[in-house]
Amino acid sequence: MPHINVSGPKINELDKKRALTRALTDAAAAAYDMPRETIVVIINENSPENVSVGGQLIVDRTN
Amino acid sequence: MPHINVSGPKINELDKKRALTRALTDAAAAAYDMPRETIVVIINENSPENVSVGGQLIVDRTN
Amino acid sequence: MPHINVSGPKINELDKKRALTRALTDAAAAAYDMPRETIVVIINENSPENVSVGGQLIVDRTN
Amino acid sequence: MPHINVSGPKINELDKKRALTRALTDAAAAAYDMPRETIVVIINENSPENVSVGGQLIVDRTN
Amino acid sequence: MPHINVSGPKINELDKKRALTRALTDAAAAAYDMPRETIVVIINENSPENVSVGGQLIVDRTN
Amino acid sequence: MPHINVSGPKINELDKKRALTRALTDAAAAAYDMPRETIVVIINENSPENVSVGGQLIVDRTN
Repeated sequence: MPHINVSGPKINELDKKRALTRALTDAAAAAYDMPRETIVVIINENSPENVSVGGQLIVDRTN
Repeated sequence: MPHINVSGPKINELDKKRALTRALTDAAAAAYDMPRETIVVIINENSPENVSVGGQLIVDRTN
Repeated sequence: MPHINVSGPKINELDKKRALTRALTDAAAAAYDMPRETIVVIINENSPENVSVGGQLIVDRTN
Repeated sequence: MPHINVSGPKINELDKKRALTRALTDAAAAAYDMPRETIVVIINENSPENVSVGGQLIVDRTN
Repeated sequence: MPHINVSGPKINELDKKRALTRALTDAAAAAYDMPRETIVVIINENSPENVSVGGQLIVDRTN
Repeated sequence: MPHINVSGPKINELDKKRALTRALTDAAAAAYDMPRETIVVIINENSPENVSVGGQLIVDRTN
């Protein structure tokens, strides 16, 4: 029952979500030496209004 | 101030949310021996595109 | 694969953890109408030095 | 790479998000004695149907 | 009931934890316009073996 | 600033943590098309007394 939470910007293509969750699952199954079926991944998509780096919201970045 | 975060598929009926948060609160109040008023519950509803089990997105399940 | 994260003070008796996780699991299984086997619960135990309410650490409470 | 997750009701004004993330970043940079650029803040906005205090959903509060 | 989770390296001085939670609480109370008593902060202290940036564990950094 | 949180049993060998965080970082960098340096991974190690599946604590499993 390892559990992976990945938090980042919106991912628009379903294929990218497929590849991401597959790769994260493979990495965890290898590290924990547990069957892939036990690995759960949750993707959190954050709006650029709701994330800041260094105190600056992503939505306010000029480059 | 125990805090419960429950993450799962969308719950469509408000009454189910009421029953869920009530039951989780009761369980935590008993275990921690603290007043119910101190227990906060947050429900996170995940889209089937954003959760995988065994590397397969829920949206891709065929059964 | 609903997932419950419960965060609170240290629980010293294993039986209280058993009762807590059982009750949380029952509540989630009922709300999501999913088999109990799909429900994972994680207990996080926080030190009183690492939690504040209203800006006051639990370790500094005088009552 | 300190990471702050702040979870609460919806914040409607972007300026409040700016002020919040800036203040959280300043607080963390001072406590960890690390450059502001290393501090990431994520705001989670919860619907009043998805949060309970004392077993009562926020949406059901009558005052 | 806003909830702040701050995750970073170990903080050795209790006074730094006091200052951190106080400042985070003030920032959240102002942004949400809610009483300080409703704000809970949890500090998570991570070992340098358990955090990576750019795929490199903190414990492996050479500068 | 994508952020990955992986929660599972204790990992005893540092090399497994290195491999895990590297693989998770690669997967996220590819999916988000962002430089590896922006990806932070945190490993949470849970005691078998603090995790249940199907209402049974890991520590109570007989096989």
